[in-house]
Amino acid sequence: MSVSAMDKIMSPASMAVIGASSREHTIGFDIMKNLQKYGYSGTIYPINPKDSEIQGLKAYPSVLDVPGPIDMAVIVINSKFVLSTIDQCHQKGIKGVVIISAGFKETGPAGKQLEEALVAKLHEYGMTCVGPNCLGVVNTDPKVRLDACFAETLPVRGDIGFVSQSGALGGGILNILKDLNIGFAQFISIGNQADVNADSAIEYWENVDDVHQILLYMESIADPQKFRTLATRTTKKKPIVALKAGRSAAGASAASSHTGSLAGADKAAAALLAQSGVIREFSLENLFNTAKVFSHCPIPKGDRVAIVTNSGGPGIMCTDAVVEHGMQMAQLSEETKNNLRAFLPPAASVKNPVDMIASAPLEHYKQTLKTVLADDGVDMVVVIYLPFLGLKDIDVAKAIMEIKAENPSKPVVGVFMTTQDFFQKISEMEVNIPFFMFGEQAVEGLNRLNQQRKWIARPEGKFPEFKVESEKVKSVFSSVLYEGREQLTTAESLAVLSAYGIRVCKDGEAKDLDQAIALADKIGYPVVMKLNSKKISHKTDVGGVRVGIENADQLRAEYTDMVNKLKAKNLLDGMEGVIIQEMVKSDREMVCGIATDPQYGPMMMFGLGGVFVEVMKDVSFRLAPLSDLDALDMIKSVKAYKLLEGARGEIPADINQIKDILLRLSQLVKDFPFVDELDINPLMISDKDGEPIAVDGRIKIRLQEAERLIK
Amino acid sequence: MSVSAMDKIMSPASMAVIGASSREHTIGFDIMKNLQKYGYSGTIYPINPKDSEIQGLKAYPSVLDVPGPIDMAVIVINSKFVLSTIDQCHQKGIKGVVIISAGFKETGPAGKQLEEALVAKLHEYGMTCVGPNCLGVVNTDPKVRLDACFAETLPVRGDIGFVSQSGALGGGILNILKDLNIGFAQFISIGNQADVNADSAIEYWENVDDVHQILLYMESIADPQKFRTLATRTTKKKPIVALKAGRSAAGASAASSHTGSLAGADKAAAALLAQSGVIREFSLENLFNTAKVFSHCPIPKGDRVAIVTNSGGPGIMCTDAVVEHGMQMAQLSEETKNNLRAFLPPAASVKNPVDMIASAPLEHYKQTLKTVLADDGVDMVVVIYLPFLGLKDIDVAKAIMEIKAENPSKPVVGVFMTTQDFFQKISEMEVNIPFFMFGEQAVEGLNRLNQQRKWIARPEGKFPEFKVESEKVKSVFSSVLYEGREQLTTAESLAVLSAYGIRVCKDGEAKDLDQAIALADKIGYPVVMKLNSKKISHKTDVGGVRVGIENADQLRAEYTDMVNKLKAKNLLDGMEGVIIQEMVKSDREMVCGIATDPQYGPMMMFGLGGVFVEVMKDVSFRLAPLSDLDALDMIKSVKAYKLLEGARGEIPADINQIKDILLRLSQLVKDFPFVDELDINPLMISDKDGEPIAVDGRIKIRLQEAERLIK
Repeated sequence: MSVSAMDKIMSPASMAVIGASSREHTIGFDIMKNLQKYGYSGTIYPINPKDSEIQGLKAYPSVLDVPGPIDMAVIVINSKFVLSTIDQCHQKGIKGVVIISAGFKETGPAGKQLEEALVAKLHEYGMTCVGPNCLGVVNTDPKVRLDACFAETLPVRGDIGFVSQSGALGGGILNILKDLNIGFAQFISIGNQADVNADSAIEYWENVDDVHQILLYMESIADPQKFRTLATRTTKKKPIVALKAGRSAAGASAASSHTGSLAGADKAAAALLAQSGVIREFSLENLFNTAKVFSHCPIPKGDRVAIVTNSGGPGIMCTDAVVEHGMQMAQLSEETKNNLRAFLPPAASVKNPVDMIASAPLEHYKQTLKTVLADDGVDMVVVIYLPFLGLKDIDVAKAIMEIKAENPSKPVVGVFMTTQDFFQKISEMEVNIPFFMFGEQAVEGLNRLNQQRKWIARPEGKFPEFKVESEKVKSVFSSVLYEGREQLTTAESLAVLSAYGIRVCKDGEAKDLDQAIALADKIGYPVVMKLNSKKISHKTDVGGVRVGIENADQLRAEYTDMVNKLKAKNLLDGMEGVIIQEMVKSDREMVCGIATDPQYGPMMMFGLGGVFVEVMKDVSFRLAPLSDLDALDMIKSVKAYKLLEGARGEIPADINQIKDILLRLSQLVKDFPFVDELDINPLMISDKDGEPIAVDGRIKIRLQEAERLIK
Repeated sequence: MSVSAMDKIMSPASMAVIGASSREHTIGFDIMKNLQKYGYSGTIYPINPKDSEIQGLKAYPSVLDVPGPIDMAVIVINSKFVLSTIDQCHQKGIKGVVIISAGFKETGPAGKQLEEALVAKLHEYGMTCVGPNCLGVVNTDPKVRLDACFAETLPVRGDIGFVSQSGALGGGILNILKDLNIGFAQFISIGNQADVNADSAIEYWENVDDVHQILLYMESIADPQKFRTLATRTTKKKPIVALKAGRSAAGASAASSHTGSLAGADKAAAALLAQSGVIREFSLENLFNTAKVFSHCPIPKGDRVAIVTNSGGPGIMCTDAVVEHGMQMAQLSEETKNNLRAFLPPAASVKNPVDMIASAPLEHYKQTLKTVLADDGVDMVVVIYLPFLGLKDIDVAKAIMEIKAENPSKPVVGVFMTTQDFFQKISEMEVNIPFFMFGEQAVEGLNRLNQQRKWIARPEGKFPEFKVESEKVKSVFSSVLYEGREQLTTAESLAVLSAYGIRVCKDGEAKDLDQAIALADKIGYPVVMKLNSKKISHKTDVGGVRVGIENADQLRAEYTDMVNKLKAKNLLDGMEGVIIQEMVKSDREMVCGIATDPQYGPMMMFGLGGVFVEVMKDVSFRLAPLSDLDALDMIKSVKAYKLLEGARGEIPADINQIKDILLRLSQLVKDFPFVDELDINPLMISDKDGEPIAVDGRIKIRLQEAERLIK
């Protein structure tokens, strides 16, 4: 896709509707109807070989018969005619098309083939295409007014750019927007995303001024790395809020049967969204609530929330929510409290939450809100209204909006526990604050504002380049390749890590017992002895790891025992001797490494190691390549971070060194992209000085890819 | 409170309104108005010394002037006249009152005193009282039609019994019920809960047939043990759904300033609700969604969910939610799939989720739902509708309800992503299924049905009595008391545990080094040596624990080192020698114990021990006394349960023995209720045979209470 063609699609001066129809209950009819009803500002050319006039407009047999230039074409004809139509569009000089027609990869192998042929043509012609199998596009810009979409409702103007991978869902959403007091600037139904996908929309909207926030409904992410680059940049300018469906295994299978696209593992998706600054929601309800807050609130300066209420209960519930989201309850200044005391009744509470009590009249709402907004210690305000005799909800809402208009810089949200009738009225008004029925929704919204604030304040991550001995690593891989192995031995794995500047624990290889004893003497007791075998990767399972060996006698005994056990299990073949390692004293065993997701590529992991790794699952993921801040986020987002900080009086772990290890691993998989799996387990935090030491390592490569790249 | 008086309050044949008024905008006016407007079936006696007629009814100066009997009185006069009015009520033989008047403990010390005097009178007269400082009571039973409440809206009939601790919130809720398609059977605003509280309501409603479910909004739980007994019994008959506010520290402080009642720690509340089978919600929105589902759905037979949809996206989102709630996606039978294929178009998917595709007509909705409901492998169904040209939402809703009426035994929920207009229409209809706008809400509701199903199926817990040596324990406590200590020594703590049948690790006390060596010989190396001191409870912090001592030489060295270190820190005073313990080989360190919550009383804890206890917080709580099932729930609800099961190839832990340890501790704190804190940390799971062994213990008692009870 090209941004300029995208612009032609979304803001065309003239457009063709290929497959326009006079027959009701057809998509060709509905598109024509919506375009005209919504008052499209440009010229519409209906294309239909059978009719000379459609819905009052002159129709043409093909785009080639249209006299003037055409900026874009909406295609709603049977899929079998789409390819030849694309030829004609190209001949006419059209650079952007929206293919609504279904009958492509979502239908099976034949459709998939047709779609591949379509993509080839698009590339050949340098054409940008939305769809196929989509609902269409919308641009509510008053200068454009493009409703090229067959949803039932006309679009509502707003500041959202919305991308939906599900057509029907997009239609449903268009339907309910008005009720929610939000609207679109632009809407793109990407359908099978043969060309235009969420990435393209982000790239295009990054610099479209009237799109203030971007909402995504995705079932798969077409190009994760591109998404990352674009989203990371754009989220600094405007929030991106995403609902990524197909999280569960069962959900993912429903996803692939639905759109024919492979849903990536959710861990990778979560990592990608987190490190790109995309706000992730897990339900449409939350997606829209968040959008509502972004539509009607500025980004706050801090996370201190004040609550103004006429009822204690909802105040408590909001307080719970504020604390649980990790925000702060604002401490009102003495001045603020005095000002409040001056007019509120004695039974009122002037601490936060400010409880004006049930009988609070309109004037108290106004003055309390004004007073609280003036407090420098307050960044955001929740105003709660519960019905009380004689006070009308809509009047309170108007009063709050009046005060808000005078104080535009701080977010204010309304919680009105009143009838739907109120929300109906509100949905027909211009509002300057978002209204919710329940306090938790409002606070969740503030939490999203706060999240965006923190993201904007976060500096740009750096991608440091370390000096490493990549030639050494290359030679290790070469010898592994030569032997046709996927799996590196422990010694090879540790050699690779060491060459990339990771402190591995002191060790050496010994071919036999005598060498082992000599080596242990050199390293110093206590030592660990590990089986070195090309055939066995899970050494613990075969008794291949012996720890706490204190002297030569013990070493001798353990060695003999290991060999006997292997012999008994018929596993002696492949044993190349043992590795003797320094024994690192540590209570803190971490794990880090690289995993490869088939769709998202290499992914870094960090977390609590040892016996707990599988059970506690206290690990974090980020996609490679890591920025320094990504690495820090990974480290800080596990619960075990407190252990690293020295929660129990230990020497704090050297966080910078851990960060560097993650960055060095990231560099490794960038330099050698065929590294499929890498584990440092355990990464021990030395009790002595907090140094992270790789005590054991495992590396697996993808052979074919490695052969291609190394040779 | 008494149940019979409660029944008089909620279903009175005659009632007095003390403080009835002809003056608009007073509560005495509104109560009278609501009572008459809603069509109360009994006789109303307005009481007001100044008027002879109020709102068309003959008024009396006092209840004593009323000729006939009076079942209950609603009191809305100034608080200073309440006590004398109670005297008159008693004289008149009234057994139940509703005190709406404010001005009691919520106002400060004077009000608190007044409330105490009120409570004394209530006890003296054996009177049952709702309030004070409340909104009133409602009973929508057509035979009663009691709206003794000053909310703005008239109540909507339904099957919910609702208790609200917040008056204004109760009013707000009455307001929005109709919009939500739910209604009350009865409503009680408990206000300051001087007498009637959530417990009383549960006790009363347990046997009120038209209350099918109980909803609670609570900021504090007045009598946790009573609540537990009543709720545990009642939840087997009808669901109890609770929102307990004041969870966070900040929230709890707002709670105490609001109602003057002390909000208990949330961990204890969570434990209480879980072990009583109460469904806990964390927002009003969820509370009402759950109520809606219970109102319109039977309890399912299993947890297998089928999804019927006309759009892929929402089907995927629902699938995600089903899996994330731990329910199963139903596997449709071949027969079902064939039946579906017979009428659905080829593009449809007949796997679960059944995607009928966007164009699905009414007939497909009906037939698909019918077919899926007939499948024995389906326990619950979600039906999703997204607007599609020509198909009206309300028609689809009616079609679904028609099929549901023919198949009443399986829960069906509707997800209609359409306009508020639809929900408005639905709110004016009799419905037999709950409708939601978003799939996640619907699935959350099904999850609650499933939770209730599992709770009903759960057998009753048993409270076994173990044979223990309580005299031994008594003598330990006596000697501790004699020395005026709160804290038991390690040896004393382990002796107490051992006397209660808990396997503690073999050990003995040694006064000096020679005794220590003799003892270690007896126990067998390796051993652990621990400081035995009356002054130091956190032994690790002072180097007072030495592990892995292999022989007498090492023991000698460690002993000397310990003494030297204590001397250097000036901590030698109080040292009584050392404890020599068997060294239990174990990778799995658990923790269990007793904590005392000031409001909820003794609380049991179990979880992952060792260095992780504070950081991972992988622990569970239940209130004492524990049933055997409570103990099992505690063990199974921690993540580390997988370690106990032997996730990494270890010998599985003896779960029964762990359960018994928890039950024995529960018995200990029942027998000796002054035990304030007890820790078994670590409780090691022996690598050898999975036996749980208490390796270290700490017990703290409450001195004054102990003195009272022991002597």
